[in-house]
Amino acid sequence: MVITLTTDFGTADHFVAAMKGVILGIAPRVRLVDITHEITPYEVNEAAFVLAQAWSWFPKGTIHVAVVDPGVGSERRPILVEAGGHRFLGPDNGIFTAIYDAAPHRVREISNRKLMLAHVSRTFHGRDVFAPAAAHLAKGAPPARFGKQIQDFLRSATLHPVRTKPHVWSGAILRADRFGNLITNLHIDHLPDVRTRPFALKVGLETIRRLALTYTEAAIGEVFAIVGSSGYVEISANQASAARQLGCGAGAPVELEIFYS
Amino acid sequence: MVITLTTDFGTADHFVAAMKGVILGIAPRVRLVDITHEITPYEVNEAAFVLAQAWSWFPKGTIHVAVVDPGVGSERRPILVEAGGHRFLGPDNGIFTAIYDAAPHRVREISNRKLMLAHVSRTFHGRDVFAPAAAHLAKGAPPARFGKQIQDFLRSATLHPVRTKPHVWSGAILRADRFGNLITNLHIDHLPDVRTRPFALKVGLETIRRLALTYTEAAIGEVFAIVGSSGYVEISANQASAARQLGCGAGAPVELEIFYS
Amino acid sequence: MVITLTTDFGTADHFVAAMKGVILGIAPRVRLVDITHEITPYEVNEAAFVLAQAWSWFPKGTIHVAVVDPGVGSERRPILVEAGGHRFLGPDNGIFTAIYDAAPHRVREISNRKLMLAHVSRTFHGRDVFAPAAAHLAKGAPPARFGKQIQDFLRSATLHPVRTKPHVWSGAILRADRFGNLITNLHIDHLPDVRTRPFALKVGLETIRRLALTYTEAAIGEVFAIVGSSGYVEISANQASAARQLGCGAGAPVELEIFYS
Repeated sequence: MVITLTTDFGTADHFVAAMKGVILGIAPRVRLVDITHEITPYEVNEAAFVLAQAWSWFPKGTIHVAVVDPGVGSERRPILVEAGGHRFLGPDNGIFTAIYDAAPHRVREISNRKLMLAHVSRTFHGRDVFAPAAAHLAKGAPPARFGKQIQDFLRSATLHPVRTKPHVWSGAILRADRFGNLITNLHIDHLPDVRTRPFALKVGLETIRRLALTYTEAAIGEVFAIVGSSGYVEISANQASAARQLGCGAGAPVELEIFYS
Repeated sequence: MVITLTTDFGTADHFVAAMKGVILGIAPRVRLVDITHEITPYEVNEAAFVLAQAWSWFPKGTIHVAVVDPGVGSERRPILVEAGGHRFLGPDNGIFTAIYDAAPHRVREISNRKLMLAHVSRTFHGRDVFAPAAAHLAKGAPPARFGKQIQDFLRSATLHPVRTKPHVWSGAILRADRFGNLITNLHIDHLPDVRTRPFALKVGLETIRRLALTYTEAAIGEVFAIVGSSGYVEISANQASAARQLGCGAGAPVELEIFYS
Repeated sequence: MVITLTTDFGTADHFVAAMKGVILGIAPRVRLVDITHEITPYEVNEAAFVLAQAWSWFPKGTIHVAVVDPGVGSERRPILVEAGGHRFLGPDNGIFTAIYDAAPHRVREISNRKLMLAHVSRTFHGRDVFAPAAAHLAKGAPPARFGKQIQDFLRSATLHPVRTKPHVWSGAILRADRFGNLITNLHIDHLPDVRTRPFALKVGLETIRRLALTYTEAAIGEVFAIVGSSGYVEISANQASAARQLGCGAGAPVELEIFYS
């Protein structure tokens, strides 16, 4: 049984290790895999995006714990989501929006105190609520034991592009990765004609008209569009940082026009 | 059996991997968990603090290897500590001071060359001494086989606050975490009246008089005190960095006065 | 069975997690160990050096996946290397040069599509080619099933020093580590007289004439040479960064003269 962890805790402090210690104390045989702990502090949408890219590559049955939780200690609910044969544990703050978009899902509020640590602090539910819940789930506790199903769980304002004219979409950069690639929210499955028609993709002061098939076919430093490994259109520069070259990062707007005439 | 690792080696070099390779070569079934490798180079006290926050969340029997070792290759001794049902391996430089404070303990000098690598370098005892010792311990080698018990092991100048007047304590910031929370050495168990009495906590040019119960009850950017998940009084700012706002970091002095009149 | 991972993907994105998910889906019992994901993007030589330092500390049979792959999607071949009782998977771009130097080796092109994911993207062979290949290898697929043996695999321009006069060697800094130690390509096994004869090691504007046995025997801040744990001559400063003090990093030239008169 695999448990993955996605947080904004970083790796310099004891937070992640405390969660792992709690999990291994309850379920010594689980496999722990870090997705990332480098989410920008409090950036729920960024965590939602990274988790969305990673979860489906894990085997069915995997338990994904995601803790980016600016509302910890307030009224926000801890939840358990079943979707696509996987399980997800985290705060009800929209962090699982992409999961809800991707697959039929059942959501429960985690309310059973017997499946939490004896003392639940007000500041660290990753350790006191989500880690023990994940471990009990891994050991076979049925989801219904955690709490009642709910319907009013939160979704993040979805980051899908908006169609503003018949052949124009207004979108956004979801994330700049380590290589400076700018990942847009334009998915090739919804815009397949990008592959075959001329287009103009505006970002910052640039207009990109070229879709490359590989990073190496462009000149070094040239900015181009490419369909990334996750199916999103990315803006890249061959062996250079498109983010730096365009002065853009997460949240920046993009506009795509496809030409049919 | 779990082995945790705490070092100042970072994760960009081969050092941590070499330790893990040596451990898995001797004890292929152990579970390896990184506490952190981001300790500031040579900062033994910082490692002592992070380890102190993490160790007790792991199951009994866990072996904790801590290598922040500015004196490697000199006369400082490698030691094995048994405390609180856990085992600790590292240099005798005060790195286990908080463990000695927390639980009855037995300390041994590691001197049995048969439980080290055949060739012990002068610069990398993490790989050549502590990794194989941890692996042999995990496989069941009894502590007495590692070496003789010692009494003159080193303690770090403890970082407990000093009472300077009947209701005044002089303390210090132990660490600034990733979120900019400033963790003081004032523990709520020793100063429970902070919860119920008016107080003044001086840090830098600020005086804090408010104890919040959750991060979200303060205004965004407001600086306040909060009892952190580890029981220490922390200085925080809601969705902002208290460290940056106050211009303070690890080592900075704090002064607490509690008012009883 | 242990699988190690060495990449330039960083730990902030989903890339490494996707590889681990794919591996665990095929071979749920393997042990995953990160060597590093902090290789400078596209720096094949740096990856070659770090892997060279780490691999031999792992048990025989370990599978090492190394993906620093600026040519992904182009004609470069994916390869499987058997050497020294270990197995190595990665692109044929010289990343295994130090392995070829270290041990007799057999190299195969990975061409069997049945041992890759059903859909192979053009941009992420780490997930689509190397992760499944490593998992199938761990589960017992024989190397010959992956593809034909090849002889024309690539080597990096080796980073060995060049002898320019009878007692003078021209070398280079391979890497600056986290502590600012400058690791040269001068190996003590090839230059044992450094231990016993006077020498002059020129780097930047400095000439170093002292070989220390431990970091602590020099004055704080003093720059000196030391034989590192991997056998290479390193340039270090006691409790300070030699890299910062000398203004040097990876790629900088060094010159060693040994005096016999």
